[in-house]
Amino acid sequence: MAALMQRTIVISTYATASKDLISSLSSGQYATVYNLLSFAIASLLFTSLFLLLVQGRVAPRYRNALIVSATVCGIATYHYFRIFSNFKESYPAGSTVDSAHALSAVQFNEGYRYVDWFLTVPLLLVETVAVLALTRAASRHLLIRLVPASALMIALGYPGEITLSTGPRIIWGVLATLPFIYLIYVLFVELTRALDGKTAEVRRQISTLRVLLIGSWMVYPIAFAFPLLGGTFFSGASGFVLRQGGYSIADVLAKALFGLLIFRLARTQSILDEPLIYGDAEDVHGAEPRAVPGARKAT
Amino acid sequence: MAALMQRTIVISTYATASKDLISSLSSGQYATVYNLLSFAIASLLFTSLFLLLVQGRVAPRYRNALIVSATVCGIATYHYFRIFSNFKESYPAGSTVDSAHALSAVQFNEGYRYVDWFLTVPLLLVETVAVLALTRAASRHLLIRLVPASALMIALGYPGEITLSTGPRIIWGVLATLPFIYLIYVLFVELTRALDGKTAEVRRQISTLRVLLIGSWMVYPIAFAFPLLGGTFFSGASGFVLRQGGYSIADVLAKALFGLLIFRLARTQSILDEPLIYGDAEDVHGAEPRAVPGARKAT
Repeated sequence: MAALMQRTIVISTYATASKDLISSLSSGQYATVYNLLSFAIASLLFTSLFLLLVQGRVAPRYRNALIVSATVCGIATYHYFRIFSNFKESYPAGSTVDSAHALSAVQFNEGYRYVDWFLTVPLLLVETVAVLALTRAASRHLLIRLVPASALMIALGYPGEITLSTGPRIIWGVLATLPFIYLIYVLFVELTRALDGKTAEVRRQISTLRVLLIGSWMVYPIAFAFPLLGGTFFSGASGFVLRQGGYSIADVLAKALFGLLIFRLARTQSILDEPLIYGDAEDVHGAEPRAVPGARKAT
Repeated sequence: MAALMQRTIVISTYATASKDLISSLSSGQYATVYNLLSFAIASLLFTSLFLLLVQGRVAPRYRNALIVSATVCGIATYHYFRIFSNFKESYPAGSTVDSAHALSAVQFNEGYRYVDWFLTVPLLLVETVAVLALTRAASRHLLIRLVPASALMIALGYPGEITLSTGPRIIWGVLATLPFIYLIYVLFVELTRALDGKTAEVRRQISTLRVLLIGSWMVYPIAFAFPLLGGTFFSGASGFVLRQGGYSIADVLAKALFGLLIFRLARTQSILDEPLIYGDAEDVHGAEPRAVPGARKAT
């Protein structure tokens, strides 16, 4: 524990060192990051509320996936509010609207994103498994592989994110990639085995979910690698805008859009399982109005 | 005389370790505490909401445990918001992002944590007993032992926490340990007696709960004792970071993770008690879809 704390303190020292590199943002760069952070707040907050409000449109066994997905978007919303106000404090307005926003004494805290991912990335995998409504044994088999690997991936990425040196950035980046590859294996091989008995439409939607998850996660290592590319575009203030913008868009795709696709899959399965309860009238009876509740038992 | 001087110096060193005398934190130390406090807020707030949202997934007799657990996480969230803003006010940014954060005129208030524990630690024991759904007499037998002892433990710890002197710190620490030992006795001996008739899986989960509770509580006396250990690592600013970090992680484990395990136990028992209502379809009927509500009674 003491060793861990010591390491944390050392890590935080690197963190401090990396912030002050971006000493100033142009007003255009500032506005770009500012608007993308606000876009992320709006998308995540209202996806979270939406997912809670539509609980009744899916069968009970799929509701847990929606609750976990709403929790993920809620946790991310909390962190985006923090990042947003931190960003305003770190880069206050200059003397005129066109002035550069110089770094204040308040450091821009990259830690929020990693705390967020540490909590939300394992939960994204939990919601993915939950929406499949597998047996408890099959769910457990997947979760004990996916959850620890995803937490490890984030924990290994953090030291690389905050270091200023190229060598350690590459080493931590490569180490974090190992659990990422393992996650891809579990999602594409082990999870596929658990899908026997699902219809073609359900399998197609699960494929889309997987591609979105892995695809949006690819943004993080790419943004992570920007400082390694160097050049005026990928480093300095311009690289900062790219990285913050890339992370924000990736979070909206991997959490908000992903949550909506989880809802769509839960809805499709609910209709397949219990068309009389969850299907729209047209799905069940052509153009006839939905049967009244009392008539259900008679069918 | 030399011995007296020595002792005075030693006591001053301890004094430095106490919260209001930490005159300055490095930017890395500040960031470490700051991020751990924010991590605690995110974990506790969303665990609290999650526990309220999943009420429907457990049988009514276990819902009280979830409500109490959500209340515990809610109370802790409130206190962490207070501690977080207090911390920012007590250690404002220096002249640059790399500058040390010097103590302002606003004292860092350790009282929040003790008020929190005074309310939440007895409630953690209430939720532990509630999730067992024992008879009223058996619950009462445990609660009239656990609740007063836990409140006494916190009340006796506080004078030791705030004193600057070694002697009183040890004396109050030892006094607080007596109800702690009594709690271990009640949890491991008396509570075990009340578990006749529970299945092996339920008993295993209760054991995990107890170990997590007692294990995470062990962090508090260890952090409490840091100033007694002395040395540059366990006292001064570094000891402050260790203590605040240790308390925050212990609170996340003892309240948020503990709450999720309470939910898991409530869920396991609900499925055992009423598989047709709370079990997933596949657990009950193999691969068949779940029967419609009206058909359940007929099976």
